[in-house]
Amino acid sequence: MPQYKAPLRDFRFIINELLDAPAQLAQMPFYQENETADADLMNQVIEEAARFVEGELLPLNQVGDQQGCHRSENGDVKTPDGFKAAYQKYVQAGWPALDADPKWGGQGMPHTVANAMLEMMNSANVAWAMYPGLTHGAVSALSEVGSPELQALYLPKLISGEWTGTMCLTEPHAGTDLGIIRTKAADNGDGTYAITGTKIFISAGEHDLTDNIIHLVLARLEGSPEGTKGISLFLVPKFIPGADGTPGERNGVVCGSLEHKMGIHGNATAVLNFDGAKGWLVGEINRGMNHMFIMMNAARLGTGMQGLGIGEIAYQNAVAYAKDRIQMRAEPRVTPDQPADPIIVHPDVRRMLMTGRAYNEAGRALALWLALALDTEAHHPIEAKQKEAADTVALLTPIAKAFMTDNGFNVAVQSQQVFGGHGYIAEWGMEQYVRDARIGQIYEGTNGIQSLDLLGRKVLMDGGKKLQALAGTLQAFAEENEDDEAVGEYITQLGKAANQLATLTMLVGQKAMDSGDKGQDEVNAVAVDYLRYFGHVVYGYLWARMAKIAAEKVAAGQDLDGFYQAKLDTAKFYFDRLFPETKSLSQTIKAGGESLDFDLRGMFGFEPEHA
Amino acid sequence: MPQYKAPLRDFRFIINELLDAPAQLAQMPFYQENETADADLMNQVIEEAARFVEGELLPLNQVGDQQGCHRSENGDVKTPDGFKAAYQKYVQAGWPALDADPKWGGQGMPHTVANAMLEMMNSANVAWAMYPGLTHGAVSALSEVGSPELQALYLPKLISGEWTGTMCLTEPHAGTDLGIIRTKAADNGDGTYAITGTKIFISAGEHDLTDNIIHLVLARLEGSPEGTKGISLFLVPKFIPGADGTPGERNGVVCGSLEHKMGIHGNATAVLNFDGAKGWLVGEINRGMNHMFIMMNAARLGTGMQGLGIGEIAYQNAVAYAKDRIQMRAEPRVTPDQPADPIIVHPDVRRMLMTGRAYNEAGRALALWLALALDTEAHHPIEAKQKEAADTVALLTPIAKAFMTDNGFNVAVQSQQVFGGHGYIAEWGMEQYVRDARIGQIYEGTNGIQSLDLLGRKVLMDGGKKLQALAGTLQAFAEENEDDEAVGEYITQLGKAANQLATLTMLVGQKAMDSGDKGQDEVNAVAVDYLRYFGHVVYGYLWARMAKIAAEKVAAGQDLDGFYQAKLDTAKFYFDRLFPETKSLSQTIKAGGESLDFDLRGMFGFEPEHA
Repeated sequence: MPQYKAPLRDFRFIINELLDAPAQLAQMPFYQENETADADLMNQVIEEAARFVEGELLPLNQVGDQQGCHRSENGDVKTPDGFKAAYQKYVQAGWPALDADPKWGGQGMPHTVANAMLEMMNSANVAWAMYPGLTHGAVSALSEVGSPELQALYLPKLISGEWTGTMCLTEPHAGTDLGIIRTKAADNGDGTYAITGTKIFISAGEHDLTDNIIHLVLARLEGSPEGTKGISLFLVPKFIPGADGTPGERNGVVCGSLEHKMGIHGNATAVLNFDGAKGWLVGEINRGMNHMFIMMNAARLGTGMQGLGIGEIAYQNAVAYAKDRIQMRAEPRVTPDQPADPIIVHPDVRRMLMTGRAYNEAGRALALWLALALDTEAHHPIEAKQKEAADTVALLTPIAKAFMTDNGFNVAVQSQQVFGGHGYIAEWGMEQYVRDARIGQIYEGTNGIQSLDLLGRKVLMDGGKKLQALAGTLQAFAEENEDDEAVGEYITQLGKAANQLATLTMLVGQKAMDSGDKGQDEVNAVAVDYLRYFGHVVYGYLWARMAKIAAEKVAAGQDLDGFYQAKLDTAKFYFDRLFPETKSLSQTIKAGGESLDFDLRGMFGFEPEHA
Repeated sequence: MPQYKAPLRDFRFIINELLDAPAQLAQMPFYQENETADADLMNQVIEEAARFVEGELLPLNQVGDQQGCHRSENGDVKTPDGFKAAYQKYVQAGWPALDADPKWGGQGMPHTVANAMLEMMNSANVAWAMYPGLTHGAVSALSEVGSPELQALYLPKLISGEWTGTMCLTEPHAGTDLGIIRTKAADNGDGTYAITGTKIFISAGEHDLTDNIIHLVLARLEGSPEGTKGISLFLVPKFIPGADGTPGERNGVVCGSLEHKMGIHGNATAVLNFDGAKGWLVGEINRGMNHMFIMMNAARLGTGMQGLGIGEIAYQNAVAYAKDRIQMRAEPRVTPDQPADPIIVHPDVRRMLMTGRAYNEAGRALALWLALALDTEAHHPIEAKQKEAADTVALLTPIAKAFMTDNGFNVAVQSQQVFGGHGYIAEWGMEQYVRDARIGQIYEGTNGIQSLDLLGRKVLMDGGKKLQALAGTLQAFAEENEDDEAVGEYITQLGKAANQLATLTMLVGQKAMDSGDKGQDEVNAVAVDYLRYFGHVVYGYLWARMAKIAAEKVAAGQDLDGFYQAKLDTAKFYFDRLFPETKSLSQTIKAGGESLDFDLRGMFGFEPEHA
C-alpha cells in the first residue's frame, strides 16, 4: 500500500524561513485578536492535521478508487466504505472551521495553515478532500455577497462541516462558455425562485456524508438579457432548512446519474436535475458571473493544490520504491550482500525523482506564498499592502492552477515510470495518482483557459502593471544577491529569463495590436507556452530564494540533518535540468500563431458556414 | 462512440511518394518471386485491412476495456465478448500470415504492408492487437534459431494464427535485470527439459482465442553460470502437440492470476506458473539472452506502433469533437446560425490538434521507413545494402519505441484535453486512450532503457559509426535542398540541430571517458534527453523530405484536395512549435550528470552499505 509522510520539515522551512509568515501575520489585527499567528501554534496545528490525514484519509484512498460511489434509483448516493466515518471525525475535530471567520464559528487560523492541511489532504485522498473542499467556494461566495439572512442560516453549518456545498455551473452544452447556459430561474414572488435545468460534472453533488447539501447554482432569471450579463447566482439547498436550521422539506433537486470517470472515483460527480427547485438569490441579479469568480478563484488555487498533493505522494512512493527495488549492479556496489543494487543508484532514476522533488518543493513555496497573500489581502491593516497582495493573488492564481496541475500530472507519470511494469498495476497505487491528477488540468477552467486568463486578462489587458510589480520584486532580489557566491549563478539565469519574459510579453502584445481582428488569435496561439514560461520564472525566483537561505545555513554549519544541502542540490537540479525548458518556450512563443493560421478545409475538412 | 478512419491517403503518400517502396522492393528477388511488391496490390491489401480493422476491431475496443479478461479457478481465461469471433475472422481471412515466409504458409507480403496494418489494428483496438502481436516475436525467434523439427511443428500453426505465442521473460524480482531470473530448466535426458518458475506480466499469456498457446521462456539450465550468460530459451506449449500437430497432453504451465492494470484491459496480463512444464530448447544453451533480442527488436518497433496507433485515433476523435463542439464566438463567426462557434476556431485548440497530427505523420513515416529497412535487411540482393538497412534498424529501433510511445501518450493526453471535462468521462473513450498508451512507455524495456540502448550501445560503443552513416544521409539531403525556396528554412534548422547532435554526442562521450568509474553515470544522466533530441532530428529530416514533395505538388498545381498544402502547413507547425524542444534538450544534455551526483543520505535518506 502506498506510503505517505507529511512534509512537515518543508512546511516549517517555507512558512518560517522563506516567508517569515508568523511575523507578517502578527502585524494583522485579525490574527492578533484571534491569537492564531503564533509560529508554535501554527506548527502544532499542521502536525495535528498530518496525524489526521495520515491516520484517517490515507487508508481510504485505494478503497475509494476501487469502490467508487453508487447511486440508488431514488437518486441517493453512497460514498465508499469509511468515507462517512472519516468525515464525521473530521467535523468532530473541528477541521472544517480551521481558517473560517470566528464570527460564524470559525477558528480564525491563517489560510497559510489551512493551505498546508489542504496539500496533505490532497496527497492522502484527493477524492475525499473534494467533499469539504467544494464547501469553501460556497462559504466564500456567501460570506462576500450573501444576504445577512442567508449568511446566518447557512454559514455556521457550512463552516462547521455539518453541511457541504457545491458549485453548479456546467451544463451539457456549456462548459467554458457559461453565457449560453439554459437553467432558468422564475420569481416565485415570495423572495424565492424556482430553478429548473440540468447541471453536469457537479463534484460532491450528492452523497451520504452530511444531512444537507447546499448548491450554489448559476441560472438565468426570466427576462434577463442573453449571454453572461443575464446570469444570476442562487442558493438551492437539498433540504429546505427551517428558521432554526433543521433540514425540512426535500427540495426539487435530484441526482440523475453519476459519471464514470478516469479517476477521483471516490468523489461523486453528479448530474443534477433541478425541477422547480426552491432557490434564494445570492448577491445581485445578473451579477452571477462576477459572484461565481469569488468561488472560482478559491477553487483554482485549490485545484493547483491537488496537483501538488498528488505530485508529493507519487514522488514519496517513487523514492521508497527506488530505494527498495534491486536491479542491475552499480560500480561500486552499494548493497554488495544482495544480488543487485537499488535502482536509486542510477542517474536516470534520480532524474525522475528529482523532477518530482524540485517541482513539488517550488509548488509548495508558491502555494504558501499565495495563501499568505490571501491572508494579507483580507487582513492587512495597510490598504496598499492589501492591494499589492490582491494583485499577487490575481496574477499568480492561473499559474498556481495550471502550472501546478501540469507539473503534478507529469510528476505522477514520472513517478509511475520509476516503478517499471509494477507502476501499471493497480495494487501499487501509482496508476491511480496519474488518473486522479489528470482532472486537475481540465476542470475549474482548463489549463488553456488559465493561460488566456494570465496572458490576456492579467497581463495584457492590465497594461502589464501587475507583471511589472512582480518584476520589481524579482529585480530587487536579484540586485541584492547577484554577487552571492552560492546563488549568483541562478540569479543570472533568472534575470535573463525575467527580461526575456518582458520582451516576449511586449512582442505578443505588439503582434496582437498589429493583427486587428486577429489580435486575440495571436494571444490564444501562445498563451499556454507563455504561462509555462512565466511559471518557470516564478519557480526560479522561489528556488533562488530557497537556495540562498539554505546556503547560509550550510555555511554556518547549521545543517545537522542534511536538509539544507538537499535544498541546495535540488535548486541546482532545477536550474540545470528543468528551468532550461524556457529556451524552447521562448522560441515557440516567438514563432507565434503563424503556423496555426491555415486552411481549415484542407487540414481538417472543416467548412465554415460564413467565410 | 469513438470514430476511426484508417489514414489510407497518408499510407499511400509515405509508401509511394516518400519511400518509393514498391520500386525498392521490386529489386529484391523474394518479392519478385512472390509478386508482392506491386504498388496496387500493396494498396489493395491495406484497404482491405482497413475494412477489417474498422468493421471488426474498432467496435470491440470499449467493451474490451469495460469487461476486461476473467480467469476461472482452474486458470482458464475468458477474453471480452466478441474478441474470439473477431480473432476467428482474422485467421480465416489469412491476416496473421500476411508478411510471413511462404515456406511456412505465409503470404510473403512486405513488412511495409504489415506495418500499416499494425498501425491500424493498434488504433482500433490495441488490447486485441496484442494477441496476434506477441506471436510475431515467437515466430521470429523460431525462424532464426529454432531446430528444423520445432520449426516444422510450430511455425505453420503460429503463422496461420491457429495458435498464438508469448514471450516469458519477467519475474517478480527481475524486470530490466534478466540476469537474476530464478526460473530453472532441468534436462529430462530425452531431448526435453523440465521448466519450473514463475513469470509475470505475460501479455496474452492465457486466453480462449486459440486451441494452443506457445510460450517462449527464459530459464537457467541447471549447472549454467550465473548472470545473463547462463540463460537459455525454451519453447513450452500449453498443450503438447503430437507429431501431426494435434494439441495433446496439458503441459504444466498454469495462469495463476491476471493483473489489474491501468489500461489494455482487453489483453490478459498473466502470472504464469511453470511446474516442471515440458520444454524444448530454442537455439543454443546459454545463448537465451541473444535469442531473446530477436524477439525484443520486433516487439520494440511493435510497441512504438502502439504509441502511433493510439495517437492517431485520439487525434482523429479530437478533430471530430473540435469541429462539433460549439463554445464561445469567433470573430468573424463561422457558424452564425448557432449560439456559438466550433472550438476548432481557437488557435490553442488547433495547437493541440496539430501536435497530434505532426507527431503522428512523422511517426508513420519513421515506422514505414523502418519496415522497408527490415524488408531490405532480409531480402536485398546486395549485402552492403542489407548491412546499411540493418544499421538503420539497429540505430532507430530505440527511437521508434521510446519517441513514438512518449509522443503517443502525450498526443492522447492533448487530444483528451480538447474534450474538456468530457475527456475525463469514460463513455467518450478518450481517457481509455491515455490509459492504454501509458504502458508503451514502460514495457519491452522502459523508455529509459531504450535511451541507454541508443546512446550507450548504438552510438558510443559503436564509435559513432551508425550515427555518422545517418548523418551522411541527412547531409546529402541538406546539400541537395538547402537553396530550395519551400524547404530551405527547415533544412537550415535541421542542419544546425544535426550538427549540434554530433557535438553533444562527442561531449557526452568525452565526459564519460574523463569520468572513469563514473563514466556510465554521465551517459545514464542524459540518455533520455539525448534520445528525444535524436528523435527530433529524425522527425525533422522526415518532415523536411515530406514538405519538399508536397511543395512540388502544390507548385505543379497537383494538389486537388488540399492534402499537400496540409502537409506543408503541418511541416511548418512542426518546425515552429515542436522541433524547438531541441533548444532545451541541448542545454540539459550539456548540463549533464552534475546535478544528479549528491549525497543520497541527505536527499533520500538512503544509506549505502558500502560507501
